[in-house]
Amino acid sequence: MKSGLPKKSKDISRWYTRIVEIADLCDKRYPIKGMNIWRPYGLKALQQIDRLIRAEMEKTNHEEVYFPLLIPESLFKKEAEHIKGFGSEVYWVSHAGKEQLEERLLLRPTSETAMYPLFALWIRSHTDLPLKVFQLVNIFRYETKQTRAFIRVRECHFFEAHTCHEDYEGAETQIKEDIEIIKQFFKKLSLPYTLNKRPDWDKFAGAVYSIGIDALMPDGKALQLGSFHQYKENFSRPYGITYEDPNGKHVYCHQTTFGMSERLIGALILMHSDDKGLKFPPAVAPFHAVIVPIIFKEEETTILKTCSAIKIGLEQRGLRVLFDDREITPGSKYYEWELKGVPIRIEVGPRDIKKKQVTLAVRNSGRKLEVKMGEAEESINAALADYAEKLFEEATRINASQTFQALHLEDVKDKRGLIKLPWCGSEECGKACEEALDMNTLGTPIDEDPSCKNKELCSICGKPAKSWVRFARLY
Amino acid sequence: MKSGLPKKSKDISRWYTRIVEIADLCDKRYPIKGMNIWRPYGLKALQQIDRLIRAEMEKTNHEEVYFPLLIPESLFKKEAEHIKGFGSEVYWVSHAGKEQLEERLLLRPTSETAMYPLFALWIRSHTDLPLKVFQLVNIFRYETKQTRAFIRVRECHFFEAHTCHEDYEGAETQIKEDIEIIKQFFKKLSLPYTLNKRPDWDKFAGAVYSIGIDALMPDGKALQLGSFHQYKENFSRPYGITYEDPNGKHVYCHQTTFGMSERLIGALILMHSDDKGLKFPPAVAPFHAVIVPIIFKEEETTILKTCSAIKIGLEQRGLRVLFDDREITPGSKYYEWELKGVPIRIEVGPRDIKKKQVTLAVRNSGRKLEVKMGEAEESINAALADYAEKLFEEATRINASQTFQALHLEDVKDKRGLIKLPWCGSEECGKACEEALDMNTLGTPIDEDPSCKNKELCSICGKPAKSWVRFARLY
Repeated sequence: MKSGLPKKSKDISRWYTRIVEIADLCDKRYPIKGMNIWRPYGLKALQQIDRLIRAEMEKTNHEEVYFPLLIPESLFKKEAEHIKGFGSEVYWVSHAGKEQLEERLLLRPTSETAMYPLFALWIRSHTDLPLKVFQLVNIFRYETKQTRAFIRVRECHFFEAHTCHEDYEGAETQIKEDIEIIKQFFKKLSLPYTLNKRPDWDKFAGAVYSIGIDALMPDGKALQLGSFHQYKENFSRPYGITYEDPNGKHVYCHQTTFGMSERLIGALILMHSDDKGLKFPPAVAPFHAVIVPIIFKEEETTILKTCSAIKIGLEQRGLRVLFDDREITPGSKYYEWELKGVPIRIEVGPRDIKKKQVTLAVRNSGRKLEVKMGEAEESINAALADYAEKLFEEATRINASQTFQALHLEDVKDKRGLIKLPWCGSEECGKACEEALDMNTLGTPIDEDPSCKNKELCSICGKPAKSWVRFARLY
Repeated sequence: MKSGLPKKSKDISRWYTRIVEIADLCDKRYPIKGMNIWRPYGLKALQQIDRLIRAEMEKTNHEEVYFPLLIPESLFKKEAEHIKGFGSEVYWVSHAGKEQLEERLLLRPTSETAMYPLFALWIRSHTDLPLKVFQLVNIFRYETKQTRAFIRVRECHFFEAHTCHEDYEGAETQIKEDIEIIKQFFKKLSLPYTLNKRPDWDKFAGAVYSIGIDALMPDGKALQLGSFHQYKENFSRPYGITYEDPNGKHVYCHQTTFGMSERLIGALILMHSDDKGLKFPPAVAPFHAVIVPIIFKEEETTILKTCSAIKIGLEQRGLRVLFDDREITPGSKYYEWELKGVPIRIEVGPRDIKKKQVTLAVRNSGRKLEVKMGEAEESINAALADYAEKLFEEATRINASQTFQALHLEDVKDKRGLIKLPWCGSEECGKACEEALDMNTLGTPIDEDPSCKNKELCSICGKPAKSWVRFARLY
């Protein structure tokens, strides 16, 4: 075990840089900046996240597809805003072997332009709608800012859902469903978040409007974890995605997208953790529990056998369990699995064997729990549920201490965190706030009523405010 | 349902081209040749294959990792044979946005050259060995031959396992383990295969020797479904992968790889099927069973409710079940699910409700089976096991009828299929056989004793044969 983890409470940035490597999540020594290696432990966490996403997609009748990585330049360029937004950050393939390709191909930064020409072929009639598909893929963006594991990378694990509807209302209903999906999903991650309708100057390239899923991190900065976009007919027109309505008329589809990325892992690391290391929420933890034998020579065989039996028993009940039988001290195992954020440690020593019990230690608390061997599963499940709840409460507490609402800019000017102010809706006033606060506009709240019921005035121009608006520093 | 499936028995090539699309496995209308879209049904089958591979990997202590797609040119060029073998078929990225990159990057055609610089960092001591990792990723090869869905594509879903060992024997043991893995794995696919040690002139770029996993298809051509490679120190030397042995000496690792690809889907389609369509083996089938309600107006509610209950019950027992409640005739559902190769159809009609039974129809046979509702799961499991066995027997029967062994070239010159002849081992004689047979050399058998016990003579030069050797036409 490499040592030397800086204290999270002292320097979260240095702590983050270090823990992603010493907790075996990724290896940043690959010779291309921003392209990291997923190590087995990190990949397991990512696959749990994918599993949760797939479950939500299945529940809501989205079908999983896989579209090619490479996109011909001509397809990419059909929607003008989109190419403007992404043009400067795509990787271009122009040669194969020694040949120059007839047309340049780009590595998908997102898949609108790969999918939509096919949607135009798939959709014929109103009975083909809604079309709801998603994929979990690698995407590529040539980030010029400083890269950071999981948070700003050049090859990125990406979830993208794409839907087509008969009309605007159909698309709006979809976005409501998306909001419900992430409610279920983020609950499993024990992560509080806010939803913000981005101002027009910061919406997705090609969208009519964009909603960001923003989570406030312990350092007071917001991390965008995903987004929904209403496209209306912005893509269906250039890509020719039409359907025949019941009257035989050909009509353009309305479209939405919903995306999230490996940033989710970054958020889990930043939010749920302490100076000792990570705390994975149970739904994502590569292992719910690790079994550590406390061995004294004469009882070695009995203890190891018991540990194996416990592992098998718990796995049969759907728990992910690691039996750590390495020949190192229990103390160093405790240290390592605390660092890696396994929710529960199961200790099995001679005293436990004698008393037909196991000793549970929950990552979050110093407390140890002695439970009868036959009741281990039940106790573990209860402890996991409680643990998930505690993680959420702790995160909510941290967020609350960094969330500020005020009528006047002056009252929050020195605050760091999530700032909410009344706003007239103009870009000018929005940008003025950004500058005064040295923050970015997240947008108008969607997770709560954004209206200014008490006739609040814009914190900049003093005119009647149209809505509240949120600001934060961004990752 | 688009119709017009050519008869497999008459023209397997046209049949294949058509069925991959009408069975909803893939869409070939993407505007880049050889890059197809995985449709939901096809992707489900692929994911089942991935699941089986992961299970075998876990059993044998391989850990899953993910390495970046892009590889710097300088890394790629470190092993001379490797670049010679792949140089002409890699895609090159030279620009990002409007900038020219300092160094060209290539899209992985396989990941040796991405992984091995990191292995050099990961491995320090003999206690770090063996290192056994694998990944399931997209790879890219600029195929200039005619592309064919799943079989010859330019973006390909790929499994690759990479291992490092203390010495040659360690690496050899790994290859024995790989052979055992595919024995288990191919059993689940109901696919017979042969293992052949490739002649030197056809081994993998950089390998000391290569073993191909070759399956004979109903048209008599062999399809390579995977391979194992012994690298010895061929890569560890240029990439500097060494370990400190117990005496403190730094020693180069010996390495192996094991790869398979989406071709497995191609093989399943070609092998297990008839004029009506596909027959997925149960382990890979997206759905083990499809429930088709036979509805008469007055009993509609009861029947639909019963079907839902059956689905839930069977799913709880680990079966993958689709309830097809679309408002089309049962007949068209039968047609579609036969085409798509669902192993078992469960019919539920008024007569079944009355008799508290369901009617099972197995894809393979015309026979219908009436079973008590409470015993459906057991009957389905038995039918699936029997079905898998039958698929294997049928495939074995087809292969046997196309496998020929002879002492003299003349005796098999007009045969089509897998040809086995005695061979002196020289490239000259091997190539002469290839020409005479209009076939390729698969190599010396590994799945059976290749030795010439009866002092057979080379079928070309007449000198004492070193071993038997197999030939076939290749996909």
